[in-house]
Order: sequence, then C-alpha cells, then structure tokens
Amino acid sequence: MVFRSMSEADTAPLVTWQGPVQTQWVDYNGHLRDAYYLLIFSLATDALMDRIGLDAAGRKRTGQSLFTLESHINYLHEVKVDVVVQVRTQLLGLDAKRLQVYHTLHVGDLEQVLSANEQMLLNVTMSVDLAGPGAAPFDGAVAQSLRAIMRAHQALPRPKYAGRAVALPGTRHV
Amino acid sequence: MVFRSMSEADTAPLVTWQGPVQTQWVDYNGHLRDAYYLLIFSLATDALMDRIGLDAAGRKRTGQSLFTLESHINYLHEVKVDVVVQVRTQLLGLDAKRLQVYHTLHVGDLEQVLSANEQMLLNVTMSVDLAGPGAAPFDGAVAQSLRAIMRAHQALPRPKYAGRAVALPGTRHV
Repeated sequence: MVFRSMSEADTAPLVTWQGPVQTQWVDYNGHLRDAYYLLIFSLATDALMDRIGLDAAGRKRTGQSLFTLESHINYLHEVKVDVVVQVRTQLLGLDAKRLQVYHTLHVGDLEQVLSANEQMLLNVTMSVDLAGPGAAPFDGAVAQSLRAIMRAHQALPRPKYAGRAVALPGTRHV
Repeated sequence: MVFRSMSEADTAPLVTWQGPVQTQWVDYNGHLRDAYYLLIFSLATDALMDRIGLDAAGRKRTGQSLFTLESHINYLHEVKVDVVVQVRTQLLGLDAKRLQVYHTLHVGDLEQVLSANEQMLLNVTMSVDLAGPGAAPFDGAVAQSLRAIMRAHQALPRPKYAGRAVALPGTRHV
C-alpha cells in the first residue's frame, strides 16, 4: 500500500471488512457469485454500524437500526475462492435519518477496484409490535460519530461508480 | 392471482423462481438480509438462463455464459424466514451481447412488490486460459429464444423501479 501521511490517512476511506472468499460463495466456475459480492458489502455495512455505535449493544440502547432502502453494484472483475479481499468505505451523504455509503472491493490492500457498491440506508426504530419499522432521526451519539466521518470524507473526490443507473447504451428503452 | 386471458398470459412477466426464505438468509431480527434478496434474484437469473438454453449443457455446447455487469435493488418490504416467495422477470432490453432484466419479488402469487432488481448481463466466452472471459454475441438459438421473450415483453409497461440511481433527496452530493 502506498504510504499515506497522517493528514491523508484521516480523510481516507475506512477499511471496514477483510477476509477470504468462502467456498459457499462461489459459482460453478469457482468465481464469487454476484449476490455474494453484496453479502461482503453488507458485512462491511455491519462493521460500519459497529463503528458508529449501532452494534448489538447500541441497537438495544437506542431501539434503532439501519434498513437498506436501495443498493447499486458494479461488477468490474471476477474474484476466485480463497482470495483475501478488503472493503473500503466512503460516506457520500448524510441527513437526519439517512446515510449514503460507497463501498469498494479490493484484493488485499491493492488499489484496483473489483466491484463498487452504493447503498442508501434509513435509520429506523425497531418496533415491538406488528407495525414494522418506522423512519427515525439518528440517535445523538450515532449522529455525532457519522458527522465526524462525513466531515473527513468530504475532502475525498466523488467516486467513479456513484449515482449510476442501469441502461443499455445505444438503445431505447422499450 | 387475478385471472389472465390467454393473450394477456403470453405477455406477462415470467415466473422464474419460487421457494421459501431459508434460515441462513435472515439477519438477527429474522428478516431476509439485503444480500440474500439479491441471491434470490440471482437464482432467478439462473432459471432464466436455463430457459433460454444457457443451462449447464448449453454453456458446454456454446462455451458461453452470462456475466453480471451491474445491478440495482430497491427494498420495499421486509420478508420473514419460511415465507414462500416468487420472482417474476421482465426483459427490458436486448442487444447482440447484452441483456437487461427486471425482477420483482412477491409473497407467493400476490401482486405486492417486496423488492425490485434491475440487472445488466453480458454474454461472455468462457476462457480456458488465464485471459478471463471476453464479451461475445449470443449463440444463435439463445438469441432466438431471447428475441421471442423480448417481443412479448415489449407490450408491458416500463416498471416503476427501472433506471433508478441512488441519491439523497434535498441534499447536494459532497
């Protein structure tokens, strides 16, 4: 990995997950199946939740959790079983109830992006009845933690695969 | 399910997958985890591949397969373990090498959409060397099968969650 000075390190994307590609995640060709890229990104979001105080204890304390509203993935390179991959996470947006994150997948600490995933997450109150979860403002300590990361990440460039829509180039939608 | 006449049934989205939400797919709250919605949609794409002649025998005959380039998911409702869900699939676009599909997830044969997933798939030649897969035109029989479905699905309205990008309303990207 390229050496980063202290000030650069402060604004770098967070390393949120690292581990090997598991046997049960690959397809008939021994490549990571599309859905399991998203599982890895989902585990990275779990790790981000731990970091901002929405781990199991924090969810119990606040009665709140995050619900994924929307997710977009670009698949750039295949990944084989047993390869150790790393997820890096940049905050793209934040308001009172919503968090927009951008994950990238890498082999170890290499720079090449294997896949990119943008997620919109909604803060919800976990209901104890049958009404289902309802949107709620972030808990104070959680919001403070998110704002600190957001301030640092505002210095980062807008990433390449953010804000994309699926479309077939050169053809009209039918 | 609402009764459909023969002519309506011809143009209806294909039912590509049906089965129960499995225990290993749910999170700490007993709800289907975000990544496993995509696994169900991925299994639906596998079923579509079987239908158009890209099952294991077809992949062997043609030396070709589909590679997911890009995927967008909207999560509309939570789903609990053991619920039997169904995926319906509409073709949105097709060219010589690419296929754009739109999946929706439902409880059984009910109309309510639990989640929507748009995928862009690329036809690739499976390499036997280390060069990795390369884009290739669809095999003749596969293309014929896809064009027949595409013709039928052109009569369907453009679905609600197609062509979306992730964005935080009311805020500027940072």
